[in-house]
Amino acid sequence: MNIQQLIKENQLGLLFQQGSFGLEKESQRVYADGSVVTTEHPKAFGNRSYHPYIQTDFAESQLELITPPNTKLEDTYRWLSAIHEVVQRTLPENEYIFPLSMPAGLPTEDKIKVAQLDNPEDVAYREYLVRAYGKNKQMVSGIHYNFQLSPELVQRLFSLQNEYKSAVDFQNDLYLKMAKNFLRYQWILLYLLSATPTVESVYFKDGSPLKAGQFVRSLRSSQYGYVNDPEIKVSFDSVEKYVETLEHWVANGKLIAEKEFYSNVRLRGAKKARELLQNGIKYLEFRLFDLNPFEIYGISLNDAKFIHAFALLMIWIEQTATQEDLELGKARLAEVAFEHPLDKTEYAVEGELVLLELLSMLEQIGAEAELVEIVKDKLSQFADPSKTIGGRLVQAIEQAGSYQQLGAQLAQQYKAKAFERFYALSAFDNMELSTQALLFDLIKKGIHTEILDENDQFLCLKHGDHIEYVKNGNMTSHDSYISPLIMENKVVTKKVLHKAGFNVPQSVEFTSLEKAVASYALFENRAVVIKPKSTNYGLGITIFQQGVQNRDDFAKAVEIAFREDKEVMVEDYLVGTEYRFFVLGDETLAVLLRVPANVIGDGVHTVAELVTMKNNHPLRGDGSRTPLKKIALGEIEQLQLKEQGLTVDSVPAKDQLVQLRANSNISTGGDSIDMTDEMHESYKQLAVGITKAMGAAVCGVDLIIPDLKKPAEPNLASWGVIEANFNPMMMMHIFPYAGKSRRLTQNVIKMLFPELI
Amino acid sequence: MNIQQLIKENQLGLLFQQGSFGLEKESQRVYADGSVVTTEHPKAFGNRSYHPYIQTDFAESQLELITPPNTKLEDTYRWLSAIHEVVQRTLPENEYIFPLSMPAGLPTEDKIKVAQLDNPEDVAYREYLVRAYGKNKQMVSGIHYNFQLSPELVQRLFSLQNEYKSAVDFQNDLYLKMAKNFLRYQWILLYLLSATPTVESVYFKDGSPLKAGQFVRSLRSSQYGYVNDPEIKVSFDSVEKYVETLEHWVANGKLIAEKEFYSNVRLRGAKKARELLQNGIKYLEFRLFDLNPFEIYGISLNDAKFIHAFALLMIWIEQTATQEDLELGKARLAEVAFEHPLDKTEYAVEGELVLLELLSMLEQIGAEAELVEIVKDKLSQFADPSKTIGGRLVQAIEQAGSYQQLGAQLAQQYKAKAFERFYALSAFDNMELSTQALLFDLIKKGIHTEILDENDQFLCLKHGDHIEYVKNGNMTSHDSYISPLIMENKVVTKKVLHKAGFNVPQSVEFTSLEKAVASYALFENRAVVIKPKSTNYGLGITIFQQGVQNRDDFAKAVEIAFREDKEVMVEDYLVGTEYRFFVLGDETLAVLLRVPANVIGDGVHTVAELVTMKNNHPLRGDGSRTPLKKIALGEIEQLQLKEQGLTVDSVPAKDQLVQLRANSNISTGGDSIDMTDEMHESYKQLAVGITKAMGAAVCGVDLIIPDLKKPAEPNLASWGVIEANFNPMMMMHIFPYAGKSRRLTQNVIKMLFPELI
Repeated sequence: MNIQQLIKENQLGLLFQQGSFGLEKESQRVYADGSVVTTEHPKAFGNRSYHPYIQTDFAESQLELITPPNTKLEDTYRWLSAIHEVVQRTLPENEYIFPLSMPAGLPTEDKIKVAQLDNPEDVAYREYLVRAYGKNKQMVSGIHYNFQLSPELVQRLFSLQNEYKSAVDFQNDLYLKMAKNFLRYQWILLYLLSATPTVESVYFKDGSPLKAGQFVRSLRSSQYGYVNDPEIKVSFDSVEKYVETLEHWVANGKLIAEKEFYSNVRLRGAKKARELLQNGIKYLEFRLFDLNPFEIYGISLNDAKFIHAFALLMIWIEQTATQEDLELGKARLAEVAFEHPLDKTEYAVEGELVLLELLSMLEQIGAEAELVEIVKDKLSQFADPSKTIGGRLVQAIEQAGSYQQLGAQLAQQYKAKAFERFYALSAFDNMELSTQALLFDLIKKGIHTEILDENDQFLCLKHGDHIEYVKNGNMTSHDSYISPLIMENKVVTKKVLHKAGFNVPQSVEFTSLEKAVASYALFENRAVVIKPKSTNYGLGITIFQQGVQNRDDFAKAVEIAFREDKEVMVEDYLVGTEYRFFVLGDETLAVLLRVPANVIGDGVHTVAELVTMKNNHPLRGDGSRTPLKKIALGEIEQLQLKEQGLTVDSVPAKDQLVQLRANSNISTGGDSIDMTDEMHESYKQLAVGITKAMGAAVCGVDLIIPDLKKPAEPNLASWGVIEANFNPMMMMHIFPYAGKSRRLTQNVIKMLFPELI
Repeated sequence: MNIQQLIKENQLGLLFQQGSFGLEKESQRVYADGSVVTTEHPKAFGNRSYHPYIQTDFAESQLELITPPNTKLEDTYRWLSAIHEVVQRTLPENEYIFPLSMPAGLPTEDKIKVAQLDNPEDVAYREYLVRAYGKNKQMVSGIHYNFQLSPELVQRLFSLQNEYKSAVDFQNDLYLKMAKNFLRYQWILLYLLSATPTVESVYFKDGSPLKAGQFVRSLRSSQYGYVNDPEIKVSFDSVEKYVETLEHWVANGKLIAEKEFYSNVRLRGAKKARELLQNGIKYLEFRLFDLNPFEIYGISLNDAKFIHAFALLMIWIEQTATQEDLELGKARLAEVAFEHPLDKTEYAVEGELVLLELLSMLEQIGAEAELVEIVKDKLSQFADPSKTIGGRLVQAIEQAGSYQQLGAQLAQQYKAKAFERFYALSAFDNMELSTQALLFDLIKKGIHTEILDENDQFLCLKHGDHIEYVKNGNMTSHDSYISPLIMENKVVTKKVLHKAGFNVPQSVEFTSLEKAVASYALFENRAVVIKPKSTNYGLGITIFQQGVQNRDDFAKAVEIAFREDKEVMVEDYLVGTEYRFFVLGDETLAVLLRVPANVIGDGVHTVAELVTMKNNHPLRGDGSRTPLKKIALGEIEQLQLKEQGLTVDSVPAKDQLVQLRANSNISTGGDSIDMTDEMHESYKQLAVGITKAMGAAVCGVDLIIPDLKKPAEPNLASWGVIEANFNPMMMMHIFPYAGKSRRLTQNVIKMLFPELI
């Protein structure tokens, strides 16, 4: 069976490049000086018994970040980025993620705590490892790369050949070929990507094998790394032999469990090797890779693409490595691992030949030009070892003074970077900020999340068998279909709230001056606003804040309104300040005051300068990629200034409030001020009641309140509800301009998954 | 206290005319000959223990139709119309509503059954009445008119006077004034509106008091009507005296209960008179009115407006009738009742004076010109008794031969009228037909319904404390917020259904010919349709029904598609017929086949003639006010004919199917054919499963099925789902062009109110 030929003849090049990708990245939590922490795995990262994204590896200090599988490597990389940002922003202030595979500043062995997992077997296994290998060796970190070929490709290839009768056998041999050839040629990836040139001497029980100042390509992949006894040999000739030999070593006690077999390729698709016989190999896990300290997430997207291409080459080439070839490959790996990173490798010729074959494959399968460039760049590194990651690393270590210092510097730099736009998830910045905030909390809490439609902000959440869908951050199954429909219709909303006994401003519409005046009695002594039905620029509006006292005044106001429209409304006028109540279930979670765009004078700067200074606030930007919007200085703002006798060049007095807008929208530069703790409890309960009357689970209720400290009374003078909004905005509460942040997205998760307290 | 003056001085004219109105209309169910039925109250009218709209009065044969109160008389009248249409269309085929107050063709007393109500006390009370008055007198029907002044008016008037300290006392005296003056002047209404000139002789136990051929104005309001013993006198001087005197007659056994006091005005607002002392009178019930046989609903809207104005006059006039005036009023009523309907009344001068005062009032309160005209017309009837209802009636009876014959004719005519647009509720025809159908079923079932917003098809339903909202006929609280959002997004819908294991056609999009052809392997042997992403007039589409067999054919098809668009889709092609499954909860309630607009030749008529003939179908019309749409003969239809070698003037052969459209939409003249019973059960279950996967309670699922008789298999060749629709159309199932009607609105009600089985 010649795979290459089948692909070429049937033009399966594109399908050949499809697949599924997942990354698992270990790394130590460290202090600012790069030394490994002795603290517990942060509770904020939720429960390790099910967390799909944030786990611990061997030690309590050793994070393991796991992406979900994706059919596009780019998406896998986005997840890696997002999980990193969640971790970086959630870590205690004095903790960092160490960017190098080799640990630095190792605590004494008694202070290294194995991961405190719920399952006692998992803990017992780690304790066995301590006895067998010592704790220090277990503290080394790396990246595991999971790769599955497109099932459609495998099926198609199977149908095109006639050597195999069983589809499972065919698939197994395909993956075994990839595994064996990978083990044969893995040294090439090590040469190009390895980044463990040194380690502190306490790492070694019996003293360092490295001479002073000696650097190697990969301590982690050398005999001093985390490897099995050389005696342990497992056959990759067939799945049967693999199972047989692996079970042999477990049976005779040389391995305590199958998972103690640390091959750089693992056959995946079953919990126990024996199950592979039935299920077949589903995908491979490549475990060779050191963390790349020059990359914020430990691996570059380009290198991930290169590894994919390299893995494909392993089934593209004609030959299949024999068991002897495998031993050769392992030996060559050990040799190259101990070469100096700035030396040319002994096997450069083989490396170059293999990459030339890779280039030839890429051409034949119609790969993107970008990928070809990546491979060409790697090819050139055989001639110039200083361009390899290892080569660059030893130069950087020498510059920094030590690998611990280099690691500490980079760790701080990467953490700072993760805080640059602390309100966003960089990799998912095409989605709304509220969905990014929700995604952040979902990743942190460990709820399996699939993005169904990025443009539509549509997520599918899963915990065990429990599935929930979320759109736009808080539209869920918990609201009934009818509630947003009620809220969408202002007439119906008013009727429903009025019936339920809430204070709703009433309005009456008139089509003639005569009829309106004839109805004067309805409004006498009542605070009302008289306005044309379609208001334009506030023309024709009269407000009787103290109640209409006089028929003539009323008639005059109606007459003014009729100049602007054929229909005039007389509406109850509510005196007070508008507050937004964010209600979820039985609780008002946040109360917000929105203040129209403004600056406060300092007696020195002009209005324009004050605006620029205020706009420098980290939360302000275009308002879609930032929680708050920069204040503009357009026509409307200048008109507003003019009304106050000011221009953009005026210098307002110290503490003078300068209004730049009449409306309080955040989207026109308004300030958001959290008032949750200041608001009297009675209004919060009213907002909950209003939400219930709407049949809603999540609701933004706008109340007008003259005095937020006084308890609510049952009349419009005390408070009134002017709007109930479904899918209410969350960002203004999560990142207010002033006052306490209210992390509402966490409450959305609690509502959807009450079982996860 | 001078009410008139207060209203004038404070210009309360408009407020004075506001109020709340309710009608209760009794009538006998009769056979085609006008004789009273002996059948039970139809079960289809639901449960009389709570029915708000359809009740029985004294006898099992005596319907009582009750409108909800409305602030506009027009709306009350619409409800009266709607309730009538529901009753007319639900009655057994051989039963009718008798349009006259006096019963005809009375069964012998042993065959008259008192209403079989659940409450034994109600039945016992009726049996007492039989003993006291005999059954026949109880069989007389009338209209009760409930009227409440605007509470705002009463409050305003109270605040403007200083005679009363208590608002309740003030309100009571206001209504008592209206009641007393009404009792004083009620004869005027009797003169104008009465319509019980005669009755068959069996009605009287002791022989008819009428001479042969004698007609009177109102037997019903005469001593031969359904009135108390003249000895029973109840004081209207004050609420206290009213309670005292009424309780006196009950205590001494002359009345078995307070409700046996048959005053033409009842004080309402309490179950027991004594409670009025605390609650106050809330509204009045006027019980004087005979059924107007010339009106389909027993009363004209104009007469209802006239009665309103008359009731207002009763508080407008300065004097308040004394107890002696009341006795005078009652005596005068009895006298006028026994006058001949074509004779001038004895008291014409008083009647004219009162109506002149009414006209003066209308002018002073700024009433509509239309109302003034109505009153002027009534005024003229004092000079010409033949224009009164009674006058017209005796002429009509003489023409018909007997009042029974006249009643039978009109009853049949009114029933036929109610069937003219049997799919609509005439009075609510501004709403969608599906909401009309739902409203029909709600009225029939007896669920209290309020129309919150007619334009928005928004209803509020109530049974006991259980409230539900419905929009557009089937959007309810039973669907979750997220399901329509899922269904709105076709990408998400596909993902969700695909994950849940349903057969969903998959599609892949390409931006280059090269890439598409490189992916050929994905589509080999698969039935696919290749099309430009934005399809225009079907250009560039190639279908491989039998699967793509050949790379070149595939490449050619892709190339053709790329001529039309920059993006090309390759989509699974589903062979078969599209059916719409209407699912509610756990059940597929209806399956519909939509057939493109067509006619079938008869070898005689032209296409144009065949279309006209088909368009005469009663369900066809403009498609918004009718369930089906008339077939047009526009450009598209003519193009379609041309493709078949036909024009509108061609005469198709007998049984030749002539297609007039390619698309199967009902809105372009398509036929709807119910296939519920024909469809294999397995597909119905699939549709239920798809609905559940969407998290929906109500869903319209479109499946493509090649053979509806074969059980479903788990592959796209057997069936595929192409769409899931929220708020699916109901009318096409309720009124299909062919096949069985599926009354889905009843299922919506069952879903919302499962307690009502």
